[in-house]
Amino acid sequence: MTIKQTRVDANKLIDFSAKALQKLGVPEEDAKITAKMLVASDLRGIDSHGVAHLNMFYARRIKLGIINLHPRPKVFSQASATATIDGDQGLGFVIGHWAMTEAIKRAQKTGAGFITVGNSTHFGAASYYAMMALEYDMIGIAMTNSVAGVVAPGSTKPAVGTNPLAVAVPAQEKPPFVLDMATSVVAGGKLEIARRLGASIPEGWAIDNEGKPITDPNKRTPGEGGLLPLGGNPTQGIYKGFGLGVLVEILCGILSGSGAAILHEGPSEARGNAGDHFFGALRIDSFLPVDKFKKSMDEMIEAFETLPKLPNVKKIFVAGGYEAEITKDRKANGIPLDPPVILSLQELAKELNIEYNL
Amino acid sequence: MTIKQTRVDANKLIDFSAKALQKLGVPEEDAKITAKMLVASDLRGIDSHGVAHLNMFYARRIKLGIINLHPRPKVFSQASATATIDGDQGLGFVIGHWAMTEAIKRAQKTGAGFITVGNSTHFGAASYYAMMALEYDMIGIAMTNSVAGVVAPGSTKPAVGTNPLAVAVPAQEKPPFVLDMATSVVAGGKLEIARRLGASIPEGWAIDNEGKPITDPNKRTPGEGGLLPLGGNPTQGIYKGFGLGVLVEILCGILSGSGAAILHEGPSEARGNAGDHFFGALRIDSFLPVDKFKKSMDEMIEAFETLPKLPNVKKIFVAGGYEAEITKDRKANGIPLDPPVILSLQELAKELNIEYNL
Repeated sequence: MTIKQTRVDANKLIDFSAKALQKLGVPEEDAKITAKMLVASDLRGIDSHGVAHLNMFYARRIKLGIINLHPRPKVFSQASATATIDGDQGLGFVIGHWAMTEAIKRAQKTGAGFITVGNSTHFGAASYYAMMALEYDMIGIAMTNSVAGVVAPGSTKPAVGTNPLAVAVPAQEKPPFVLDMATSVVAGGKLEIARRLGASIPEGWAIDNEGKPITDPNKRTPGEGGLLPLGGNPTQGIYKGFGLGVLVEILCGILSGSGAAILHEGPSEARGNAGDHFFGALRIDSFLPVDKFKKSMDEMIEAFETLPKLPNVKKIFVAGGYEAEITKDRKANGIPLDPPVILSLQELAKELNIEYNL
Repeated sequence: MTIKQTRVDANKLIDFSAKALQKLGVPEEDAKITAKMLVASDLRGIDSHGVAHLNMFYARRIKLGIINLHPRPKVFSQASATATIDGDQGLGFVIGHWAMTEAIKRAQKTGAGFITVGNSTHFGAASYYAMMALEYDMIGIAMTNSVAGVVAPGSTKPAVGTNPLAVAVPAQEKPPFVLDMATSVVAGGKLEIARRLGASIPEGWAIDNEGKPITDPNKRTPGEGGLLPLGGNPTQGIYKGFGLGVLVEILCGILSGSGAAILHEGPSEARGNAGDHFFGALRIDSFLPVDKFKKSMDEMIEAFETLPKLPNVKKIFVAGGYEAEITKDRKANGIPLDPPVILSLQELAKELNIEYNL
């Protein structure tokens, strides 16, 4: 099943998104940062976290008055390397960008900076924040909790969100190592895409309210059944995926003072489905000279890439390597958008009375 | 298949192990720490990392002169929250204990402490170090690389070790959250146990040198084929498990200056199979009052434990909960040892001319 996609220039898409956000009431600087981050996801091939969500997700929530467009985040800090931030229900992108900048500042002083953030909203793709550390020659870490949609092993009720974690590490000539993973077998976006394409999903991604595998992505009833933690079943390590998901919940929800997502009452929409984050930065030259570190990264990646390949395998990828190739292509040839996404942006342009020039 | 096990008192086992290590030339304090840590693994049910390895693994390596029994570890620190330690080829338990203590000290000052350790040797189970942070009301982190035995996705050659990571988080009344996981589907110890029992292993744990699933744990040839990263295959998230394994390699091997394990020439035995570590500590009260944090942990764990259960599921466990029950039983009733383990300890006692009184 192929869908006719349209290639759209990244910079034009950023300008368009920024204009739309401004028209929605987001202050200019915040709109620009948010637009850049949304399109950065599209550039990396994380289509589930890019402009596809601009109208259906973020604009809708802004119009519902769920997001505070003029937040005054508060910083509580009792130590030089750490802090807790209250996001004042601001746009997750803006709060996240600000908090990761704070983690980097602290790492510049003490070698390590760790920030937990409560009371924020959906912040897009975690990798962007982790990658902010790269230009400072730091290792960057970003996580967020999200509304419970992943079952606990042994139950059919969701316990934690897909709770992604991202880590970015610079290399010299090779693309940076960038791991950005849901702690479930797949992120919710994969089911969303299957639904859009009318496709079935493989066994092992999700279960229904009797614990049976779901292959129809439309079948899941909210609150009953759910996605499976990475590992998928007891023999293959489901406790590891669940443990990682709970860890993300602890560092984002518990450590920030928000509490676990499973305990939040009422619709999760008010929190933008993902309200608490955790950011970290480690300054490499406080451990090892940066040049030596980066050279060693290149040597490791080269060793992996030159391992013998199975038939039909063209290249062995280290996390971030595949996305770097997509970025190169999309920067040169534009970002491919699906017809429903194009339509949603055209509708947004019309509604906000801005030009659609993509 | 059941094997007749003998229950052995934990404190007697610690005394015996410490005596044996001293006879092997380990200084008294170091022998005591190491013995305590070995038996702590047995108490938690991590039988693959306890006294089963005392004779066959550690004693053998000490006798081979591979481990420096009088190491002078060197600390390089350019920042208040971070440091790099050269382990001087010391016993991994001793170096690791010392390095984690250093991470905790730094977290007391700055809120966060992160230490990378190169040139060490096998340090046992990662959870012990992470759990050292608990009594200081900190979140503890420990990782280690190990000899390459886990294949890269798309290859049949090992790229990274089973590279375990552990995180420990205190709760109030509930047992602490303790995640201790190999980043492969299973740790090497599971194959070791299957070999000991003459049992087959499930598909999805390991592949042979043609990429086909292995079910006979004896079939794997060293250097050809290997364990699979968590996720197991592309549909179920193998890139996540591999990414986590590489991340552990980066924080232990690359950041410490040792370089990636895959690039080490010659037999891995000289490095005790796992020579580089990474430790971290986050002081909870630098983020949130400790009481509030622990209460929130309890509430989350309670919410998970009281989720509806699938038929035949007795209890829903959060990481560390099952091990806490095992510890309770083993502290009261002794540690069950398999006959080959008993035999190996009796042989060691005879060889070292110490009393076997277990």
